[in-house]
Amino acid sequence: MEAEERRADRVLILAGRHPVLEALRSRARPIEEVLVEAEARDRHADILALARQGGVRFSRAPRAALTALAGSSHHQGVVARVAPREYAELEDLLAVPVARGEPALFLALDQVQDPGNVGNLLRTAEALGVHGVLVPRHQAAGLTPHVVRAAAGALEYLPMARVGNLGQALERLKEAGCWIVGGVAQEGDAVAPWAADLRSPLALVLGSEGRGLRPLVARTCDVRVRIPLAGRVGSLNVAAAGAALLYEVHRQRQEAKGGRPRGRG
Amino acid sequence: MEAEERRADRVLILAGRHPVLEALRSRARPIEEVLVEAEARDRHADILALARQGGVRFSRAPRAALTALAGSSHHQGVVARVAPREYAELEDLLAVPVARGEPALFLALDQVQDPGNVGNLLRTAEALGVHGVLVPRHQAAGLTPHVVRAAAGALEYLPMARVGNLGQALERLKEAGCWIVGGVAQEGDAVAPWAADLRSPLALVLGSEGRGLRPLVARTCDVRVRIPLAGRVGSLNVAAAGAALLYEVHRQRQEAKGGRPRGRG
Repeated sequence: MEAEERRADRVLILAGRHPVLEALRSRARPIEEVLVEAEARDRHADILALARQGGVRFSRAPRAALTALAGSSHHQGVVARVAPREYAELEDLLAVPVARGEPALFLALDQVQDPGNVGNLLRTAEALGVHGVLVPRHQAAGLTPHVVRAAAGALEYLPMARVGNLGQALERLKEAGCWIVGGVAQEGDAVAPWAADLRSPLALVLGSEGRGLRPLVARTCDVRVRIPLAGRVGSLNVAAAGAALLYEVHRQRQEAKGGRPRGRG
Repeated sequence: MEAEERRADRVLILAGRHPVLEALRSRARPIEEVLVEAEARDRHADILALARQGGVRFSRAPRAALTALAGSSHHQGVVARVAPREYAELEDLLAVPVARGEPALFLALDQVQDPGNVGNLLRTAEALGVHGVLVPRHQAAGLTPHVVRAAAGALEYLPMARVGNLGQALERLKEAGCWIVGGVAQEGDAVAPWAADLRSPLALVLGSEGRGLRPLVARTCDVRVRIPLAGRVGSLNVAAAGAALLYEVHRQRQEAKGGRPRGRG
């Protein structure tokens, strides 16, 4: 599965079957045109049908033209020109849990730079019900092709806000009733995730591997959680830690709805 | 952090500070020699001290020699020549939980090919107390430099068995008292992970994204678990799913030891 996202002037280029299909399905942003490799038209009948349904213009082009547009040959014979995805505002994020009638669940990334990790975290977040993601403007990995590819379509549904000051943004979430939960690697005063009540509205903040949370960000945390480790090397990749912590939030909320475990399945 | 592992004749080359340090600390395999870049000796004082303590021969070499040995320039000025890591036998794996006095926890990978995912899963497995990993001989990603790098040192402590027939190996684990728990993406008869009792000895089997478990492997499973998803794209990367499931096993076992959650931290 290949996904490429690239700005050409004010237009954004999506490349590859999966991202183009997701864009057509979600209608999250206006699609100006879908271009399909002339020789591979039959392979993309589903995409052309969706474009036709949605009133999106489509045309055939030679492979070389698609490669030029996508900036790489990883386009599987299909490329779309779409309006650039706008980052969401913090207030937009706050509206999502209200609209869904769910306790808020936000994810904030502090200094997580590796694009594979960022993309994986976005994918996991979307799948486990996160309402929106916050990244600091000056250090975010941004929606590079690598991030978009690792996110595997999640970005079409997951609003993302770039904030000038992450500490201040977290304070705003607090005012709106969220607990700020810091995921940390060091012991300190951290509790095991299962020992914290994660059912109320909250924002989970993850820091970079190695450096962890910056002091101003750490200071906004109401509670710190740390997964007790059992191994000798003893560290989790930030995407793995994020998956475990978001799973834990999800578990507690689902169990609260559905009752206690019912023993061996 | 760079880790490179490369075979030169019958000798294995570890490159980069982290893998060399882990090899010196774990003493899991005999180290023939540590080579340090002549101009960067001070940066590796800790490594030289450990080598001295362990009676490991060390010497200085020009950067170009290290690069030639490592097969890449990502060696951070330190390279070790070690005896090749032998894969463990299935029976060796079974001895680990007995020696540690813990209920068995094994991880089996069926058709997981992406080296980044395999490496991440190995790292997560080691950190969350897995006793050993099983991979099928004919399709395993193998311990390539990419896998070793993503595993971030975990391989020094986590025994890995390559088996000719994964279904048969799982049957052997069953005989030894393990439940076989399949992690699946499709609903079917799967239960939520928190609804299964994961405290007894078990092997968690993960399949590839997309294809899932092969039928002969799926048939050995005593129980199938599936993380209920909340998003619209709705799928987890296999490394994220593995992190969440291994976390769940870990949580249930830790909670069984330490009592119920104590509410908001």
